[in-house]
Amino acid sequence: MILKQFSTADFSAFESRYRAHFINSLSGFKSANLVGSQDENGITNLSMVSSVFHLGASPALMGMIIRPNTVPRDTLSNIKQTGVYTINHVSSGIYQQAHQTSARYDVEVSEFDEVGLTPQYLEGVAAPFVGESLLKYALDVREITPLTINNTVLVIGEIKHVLLPEIIVAADGYIDIEQLDTVIVSGLDSYHVTERLSRLSYAKPYKKPIALNLNDDVNNSLNRGR
Amino acid sequence: MILKQFSTADFSAFESRYRAHFINSLSGFKSANLVGSQDENGITNLSMVSSVFHLGASPALMGMIIRPNTVPRDTLSNIKQTGVYTINHVSSGIYQQAHQTSARYDVEVSEFDEVGLTPQYLEGVAAPFVGESLLKYALDVREITPLTINNTVLVIGEIKHVLLPEIIVAADGYIDIEQLDTVIVSGLDSYHVTERLSRLSYAKPYKKPIALNLNDDVNNSLNRGR
Repeated sequence: MILKQFSTADFSAFESRYRAHFINSLSGFKSANLVGSQDENGITNLSMVSSVFHLGASPALMGMIIRPNTVPRDTLSNIKQTGVYTINHVSSGIYQQAHQTSARYDVEVSEFDEVGLTPQYLEGVAAPFVGESLLKYALDVREITPLTINNTVLVIGEIKHVLLPEIIVAADGYIDIEQLDTVIVSGLDSYHVTERLSRLSYAKPYKKPIALNLNDDVNNSLNRGR
Repeated sequence: MILKQFSTADFSAFESRYRAHFINSLSGFKSANLVGSQDENGITNLSMVSSVFHLGASPALMGMIIRPNTVPRDTLSNIKQTGVYTINHVSSGIYQQAHQTSARYDVEVSEFDEVGLTPQYLEGVAAPFVGESLLKYALDVREITPLTINNTVLVIGEIKHVLLPEIIVAADGYIDIEQLDTVIVSGLDSYHVTERLSRLSYAKPYKKPIALNLNDDVNNSLNRGR
């Protein structure tokens, strides 16, 4: 297949919305998460974030990028006030509501009410979960780091409480999020569901990876030196 | 559906591989990319990275997290030496080879040779692309920031050259990566392809988003005030 080359001069020549679509598509598929938060007065906020990424398992750390000049600014303000937020997987049943949270509602408006999702609370956590989401967790903020290169902000949180259906956790700890119809985003506005190709065995030099069944216990197979 | 709660005391009690699988699954689906680099002597390196994320469109910035104590350490060393690297989308045709690059090969070994992928060069770019990948780009490193919270490293690069089939770029700049069978990762080792639900119109307060056809020009429809 013939590939076309685009370089920096081309990017500069793109109209700005065209450039936003084009460049946003390049990272590959992105996770779709709703971030729940509230201010000191309990006014809730819900915003779609496609930049949540795994940072470490022990402690359990998650990163996300916030653009202070666009809609999730209330999220950032709330997190600074309370130190707490939730991350909620978006499934195919709620992706249209999730997308709608990115509209520029006024600060005193709760996106929960506007898009028709249900705030849900866990005792001791001062941030709302999304009732309709089947995989969600609460985080304590650990670091808020401005990235001066383009005025975005890296927020790092530590996962404190996870809520999910136990049946989707495999014997080795892998969580089968596909069973929940968790969606993904490409570009700014395209939503997709997934179909598993395979799990693959832990890669070792000079051995081909083998396909695993979903409920194989990868950790035990490792212990057996397979 | 009944949800089970897991909290920090549970995470601590998990066996370490179990915890790695569990926590790695929580961010949602992750992009699957191969990062190509080489050292000053031209020894090439290729490593699977699932933490590439969009940081900004103008300039076109991409972030990724590197764990210096695991396999991509050669990648980080190479990027520091040459200032350049490539990011290559992983398709369903090469996901097994891509996974295999995460094995701990010695530093003088090229993962290209070991897993059977083809290094490909663009004039003026001192880093190899993956010949078999149909969407790929070269970046100049802009910032390398240690995240002291867990000894990972945030690498930010600016996209300089993009190679892709022009036919997958929609009228408004959106790139239909699903057409390339671009895969995604969940947890540490599960690979998936995707099926589009819909593109959705730009969200505005008090209007429901509408589904778009793939080749609708979103930018023009915005200009028309739809």
